[in-house]
Amino acid sequence: MVVEHEDDLAGLDAYWRAANYLSVGQIYLLDNPLLREPLAPEHIKPRLLGHWGTTPGLNFCYAHLNRVIRRRDLNMIYVMGPGHGGPAAVANAWLEGTYSEVYREVTWDEEGMRRLFRRFSFPGGIPSHVAPETPGSIHEGGELGYSLAHAFGAVLDNPDLVVACVVGDGEAETGPLAASWHSNKFLDPVGDGAVLPILHLNGYKIANPTVLARIGEEELLKQLEGFGYRPLVVSGSDPEVMHRRMASVLDEALEEIARIQREAREGGVGGRPVWPMVVLRSPKGWTGPVEVDGLAVEGTWRSHQVPLAGVRSDPEHLRLLEGWMRSYGPEGLFDAQGAPVEGLRVLAPRGGRRMSANPHANGGLLLRPLALPDFRDYAVEFEGHGVRSSEATRVLGGFLRDVVRANPDRFRIVGPDETASNRLSAVYEATDKVWRGRLEPGDEHLGPRGRVMEVLSEHLCQGWLEGYLLTGRHGLFDCYEAFVHIVDSMFNQHAKWLKVTRGLEWRAPIASLNYLLSSHVWRQDHNGFTHQDPGFLDVVLNKPAELVRVYLPPDANTLLSVADHCLRSRDYVNVVVAGKQPALDYLPMDEAVAHCTRGIGIWEWAGTDGGVEPDVVLACAGDVPTLETLAAVDLLRCHFPELRVRVVNVVDLMRLLPAGEHPHGLPEAEYEALFTTRRPVIFAFHGYPWLVHRLTYRRRGHENLHVRGFKERGTTTTPFDMVMLNDLDRFHLVIDVIDRVPGLAERAAHVRQRMVDERLWARAYTREFGEDPGSVREWVWPY
Amino acid sequence: MVVEHEDDLAGLDAYWRAANYLSVGQIYLLDNPLLREPLAPEHIKPRLLGHWGTTPGLNFCYAHLNRVIRRRDLNMIYVMGPGHGGPAAVANAWLEGTYSEVYREVTWDEEGMRRLFRRFSFPGGIPSHVAPETPGSIHEGGELGYSLAHAFGAVLDNPDLVVACVVGDGEAETGPLAASWHSNKFLDPVGDGAVLPILHLNGYKIANPTVLARIGEEELLKQLEGFGYRPLVVSGSDPEVMHRRMASVLDEALEEIARIQREAREGGVGGRPVWPMVVLRSPKGWTGPVEVDGLAVEGTWRSHQVPLAGVRSDPEHLRLLEGWMRSYGPEGLFDAQGAPVEGLRVLAPRGGRRMSANPHANGGLLLRPLALPDFRDYAVEFEGHGVRSSEATRVLGGFLRDVVRANPDRFRIVGPDETASNRLSAVYEATDKVWRGRLEPGDEHLGPRGRVMEVLSEHLCQGWLEGYLLTGRHGLFDCYEAFVHIVDSMFNQHAKWLKVTRGLEWRAPIASLNYLLSSHVWRQDHNGFTHQDPGFLDVVLNKPAELVRVYLPPDANTLLSVADHCLRSRDYVNVVVAGKQPALDYLPMDEAVAHCTRGIGIWEWAGTDGGVEPDVVLACAGDVPTLETLAAVDLLRCHFPELRVRVVNVVDLMRLLPAGEHPHGLPEAEYEALFTTRRPVIFAFHGYPWLVHRLTYRRRGHENLHVRGFKERGTTTTPFDMVMLNDLDRFHLVIDVIDRVPGLAERAAHVRQRMVDERLWARAYTREFGEDPGSVREWVWPY
Repeated sequence: MVVEHEDDLAGLDAYWRAANYLSVGQIYLLDNPLLREPLAPEHIKPRLLGHWGTTPGLNFCYAHLNRVIRRRDLNMIYVMGPGHGGPAAVANAWLEGTYSEVYREVTWDEEGMRRLFRRFSFPGGIPSHVAPETPGSIHEGGELGYSLAHAFGAVLDNPDLVVACVVGDGEAETGPLAASWHSNKFLDPVGDGAVLPILHLNGYKIANPTVLARIGEEELLKQLEGFGYRPLVVSGSDPEVMHRRMASVLDEALEEIARIQREAREGGVGGRPVWPMVVLRSPKGWTGPVEVDGLAVEGTWRSHQVPLAGVRSDPEHLRLLEGWMRSYGPEGLFDAQGAPVEGLRVLAPRGGRRMSANPHANGGLLLRPLALPDFRDYAVEFEGHGVRSSEATRVLGGFLRDVVRANPDRFRIVGPDETASNRLSAVYEATDKVWRGRLEPGDEHLGPRGRVMEVLSEHLCQGWLEGYLLTGRHGLFDCYEAFVHIVDSMFNQHAKWLKVTRGLEWRAPIASLNYLLSSHVWRQDHNGFTHQDPGFLDVVLNKPAELVRVYLPPDANTLLSVADHCLRSRDYVNVVVAGKQPALDYLPMDEAVAHCTRGIGIWEWAGTDGGVEPDVVLACAGDVPTLETLAAVDLLRCHFPELRVRVVNVVDLMRLLPAGEHPHGLPEAEYEALFTTRRPVIFAFHGYPWLVHRLTYRRRGHENLHVRGFKERGTTTTPFDMVMLNDLDRFHLVIDVIDRVPGLAERAAHVRQRMVDERLWARAYTREFGEDPGSVREWVWPY
Repeated sequence: MVVEHEDDLAGLDAYWRAANYLSVGQIYLLDNPLLREPLAPEHIKPRLLGHWGTTPGLNFCYAHLNRVIRRRDLNMIYVMGPGHGGPAAVANAWLEGTYSEVYREVTWDEEGMRRLFRRFSFPGGIPSHVAPETPGSIHEGGELGYSLAHAFGAVLDNPDLVVACVVGDGEAETGPLAASWHSNKFLDPVGDGAVLPILHLNGYKIANPTVLARIGEEELLKQLEGFGYRPLVVSGSDPEVMHRRMASVLDEALEEIARIQREAREGGVGGRPVWPMVVLRSPKGWTGPVEVDGLAVEGTWRSHQVPLAGVRSDPEHLRLLEGWMRSYGPEGLFDAQGAPVEGLRVLAPRGGRRMSANPHANGGLLLRPLALPDFRDYAVEFEGHGVRSSEATRVLGGFLRDVVRANPDRFRIVGPDETASNRLSAVYEATDKVWRGRLEPGDEHLGPRGRVMEVLSEHLCQGWLEGYLLTGRHGLFDCYEAFVHIVDSMFNQHAKWLKVTRGLEWRAPIASLNYLLSSHVWRQDHNGFTHQDPGFLDVVLNKPAELVRVYLPPDANTLLSVADHCLRSRDYVNVVVAGKQPALDYLPMDEAVAHCTRGIGIWEWAGTDGGVEPDVVLACAGDVPTLETLAAVDLLRCHFPELRVRVVNVVDLMRLLPAGEHPHGLPEAEYEALFTTRRPVIFAFHGYPWLVHRLTYRRRGHENLHVRGFKERGTTTTPFDMVMLNDLDRFHLVIDVIDRVPGLAERAAHVRQRMVDERLWARAYTREFGEDPGSVREWVWPY
């Protein structure tokens, strides 16, 4: 163990005090940043916003981490689970000089300090939380729960990186965080870096004690050991004692990490290491007001936000604030110009070693494009429109296998135990699933270095992938369609992050977050109603148009084209919905590429309009709706050979939006050229039908649009029974045409009745024999 | 420890074999249920669907739990985390006779068994998962993660109930489940019942080993002890050994539970007990085919679904299946009629003690209405429309306090550490927050018996409340609006559950799931962009109209009226969005009740249309949009005294839907009477604007509707800056009116410019001084 010089710790304490001073200043001060004159009400912000409680603990860790970074020349970034402690991140970035480099107007002097204070949580300024605007951050921490998953995602394939991750004891109560402790079973000490979790027990959430702070220490340590860590405890409130202990514990932890990595890297793969972690028990609102208005504040939940709320109007509060700020001794921390004194400056790491300036926290800087094989080489053999069948995701698996091969250091696939079920198994020809648990005879494709990460937690999948992307790499999340809702809120937060980064010049674009949703609503033959929910698309489309893309490729070749496009894109969230069951191949590769490039188009080979204005438009989006639509056209062709039917297929859902609302939106004239303005349009849609209305309600002719889709009728049943339950089946589409094409209903009552009868018969057959009738099961497009 | 007679265990083994036989039969057989003739392809279902892997373990537990139920006369229900093991629940319900009581056509004989097999996972039959259709179930287990939270929710305020909860080792990887272990910190051994978790390690998920099955036993036990349990291990594969061990462990666990409860109930409140739990390690697909086509099946992931897939076409598979089924010895298990033999019948508990017939699993049967004080008594004093201000949720808190007082045994409030923040603190005058952790000086309102449950996990809040409601009690989930997205998927699953139960006569209606969303998008002054997301409404409205209700009461009195209505309702999901910040009181209580009863209405006192057709309609939904709308009307009144402006306020969002699509939908004529068919309608909406379009696109005059709402522009800023950022502010609404009322733009260019200037000025003021200008901050409705 390294023995610390008391001098070093005194410097470290000064650094901590400086950060605390700057944090308090951000919350309170409009002016007089260095307290050069007595604090007066006019120096105080009119609205006091922010969170003090967690901040001194975050600053404490930061100062100590700086010490070990310098001492060991560590490549380290800092993930702040309690992201509402935004003042800490901002204070440290300013102390390190990074803030002034990024935001030049916030200079490294008194005026800069004033601007820094003023802009914090101020209209037109910066948010109160750690945010994309905060240099050094890959984690917002507004919605708690994802810090540890982000940290682990960041160190994957970054063998030299250490992520110090503060987990608040409030956050520790969330489900995603509780699951994240097990990320250590997926970490490779050879190819990956290390995470140093710091469980910060400051005892309180907003208004309640925390669970982990109020169980016995023995129980807590057992729990953490049971997660596979070696916890090192730092507990107390006396700064001197705490500094000494923290320094010693961090030395021990970093030494241990180095030893684990050295042994694994020199000695080859061993068992799963027991990684160290820190348990830091310190008072909430540490070093803040002990008591306000007769109530205890430091060490209680009352310090969560702004401990002194009445500073502008209450002279006693003002006096307390001034005393509090002066207790940090600003005169010894900042020089005459207002910059940190030399003694502090030397305590910060240099250049890119500063946690606020480490390029891993601005991952786009490190982004190298994927090496992508030509997706056309994976095209299915084509014998004609709708002649042969393929399993689209299985075909994609071949492409992904070679993406994995070509990018051994920058591409991962995550999935909640569904990668094989989603039929991407070809990737296992090239790689394993990451597994650091015990191996047993009969295990297949498990190994420490795999590119596929499978854990039965959508939260972990998403969190790991986000951490991986935010640090400049690429990936794909494949998921059952219904259960991607589990990460609705994580998607929301990531989309918000992307939105803000787009306005920040200094943040380099990162790879898009790509979802492949398979095992979708229409093919849950084993699982039924709980597994039937296409509503993620609705959630996604609530986010700004410039960020989100939704693709519904109808077959294998279009899926390949779409996947290639998504893997090349930046700063988007791409959602691809694709089937895994055998389905017809509609397009040869050249047509698939052209169709996907347009995103929407008339399938002339499928329609009967012969290039003139049709009597009716049958539109479709999604593999199953496309099949039913083409089958309906076939029925129409038989029964109404004179009817001019146009088939429009939609791959890129955003094309439906007006051009003014989305970069992919179709100009009015093009939309009307496809759909007409006066003919009935029967739209067979993969998801909830009103989504199509929401996208098109401003279009001319919208009143002629009739959408069929999932209307929440489902169970464990056959594929055709599913479409019948939701009136999306071919017979019903024909009925829709008959009912909507003027004049048809009158002369075609017998056909309509026949369609009704076909449905009854199909349903009866299915109920009797437990399978779909051959006529719908084995139906093949005959062109 | 009770020593078991070998005879008893032999009987128990027979019971287990019977359940296993019936489970396999469900997956495979169309006919020949008792194998009275050699198995032939025509006896086999054409599509083999279902999940065998987890089923024998579930049956094993069931048989053993029956033994302890009989022995101790336990009041017990069974929550199956691995709900895809549906055959187990169905098999046991049939064995106990319950299935035939509920579904009379599925008789307790050979023909009934044939019907039982045939209906499983068969079109028109029952789902493959444990589902609402399954007697004895309160838990679907399709989307994994919620079993333990449901179990804990069920035993709250049910001191005599024990819930045996099987947690699969796949499910144990999910975030919600990982957090759920800590539910024991919120359980009161006096007033609540007990949960017996059974962690079932069968080693594999769909295609991968599980984390908890592959860590060392010592590490696993430490983890569980660290969660505060005493784990008792049952491990192996030899049925005889396993029966003896399981019987002994269950005796020990139930004895321990009884002791804990006795001591707590007789001796008064003590510390937090260390509850027992079971760790059951048994092979996946136990007793199924050991090897198929040369590959190991029993004890591997290959037994997850249907171990023999080719039975109908492959004679070897058929032979294996017949051998497998005969290995259970059906001839000794079922009598000549096909009913369970007497020796099995006596092993099932009697009547309501059968887990499949326990009324707690059909909670509506036990539901007693809430005793509700008259909400009118909590009305705010009224001095005129928009004269005084109240904090709506704080007013509601007073009502809820008395609901708590009047219903000490059947009403709970759950919240993720936000009940005080959401200003419902009045409830603490009547009750505590449940807390079984260590108490420290300064703690407030913490106690073992509180009616409020606060934990920083939306998943736990939702899971507990669902369990509580499903067992026949009442409750409220109060949550920050943005973070209720965390439970999108849980909401989805609960809505699906409710939808199905509505078609089941034998399921009695339960209390509605009530959400109170506060700290909403427009007032995140401390927290900013991560906390700004009103999209839960969109998720909710994807579910069937007959299940969901969304209310946006604009003030305190309307909130009281809506809350009363929701607490009385059954089988719905009610979402109430309400503000916590001071906001104007618009309606006296009598008008509030009338307005909420209509759900939508013209506010004549606010408009200037004087009862004739207006020039423009200003509609609003939500507290902040209502304020901005009324302020806009005030501006219009000044600048265009001749303009006839109608104000329509919407409380019940469902009123916007056509009458044919929702029970609350307004008939066409009424809608048109409110909104007109030809006048511009400027709609200020709380959430994403397109939601209003989605609800109204079929209405006549929809083309005149212009909706303002949240368009994903936010940060930490002032309230008025937020509405300006999203063009929802009063000045912008006036601009919208000017731009849309024919002829107005021409003659009112100067007013329009003035509105633009007002916005620029307000923004500049806010940017300069950090607060909203007084003119908007202190604006008071002058009527």
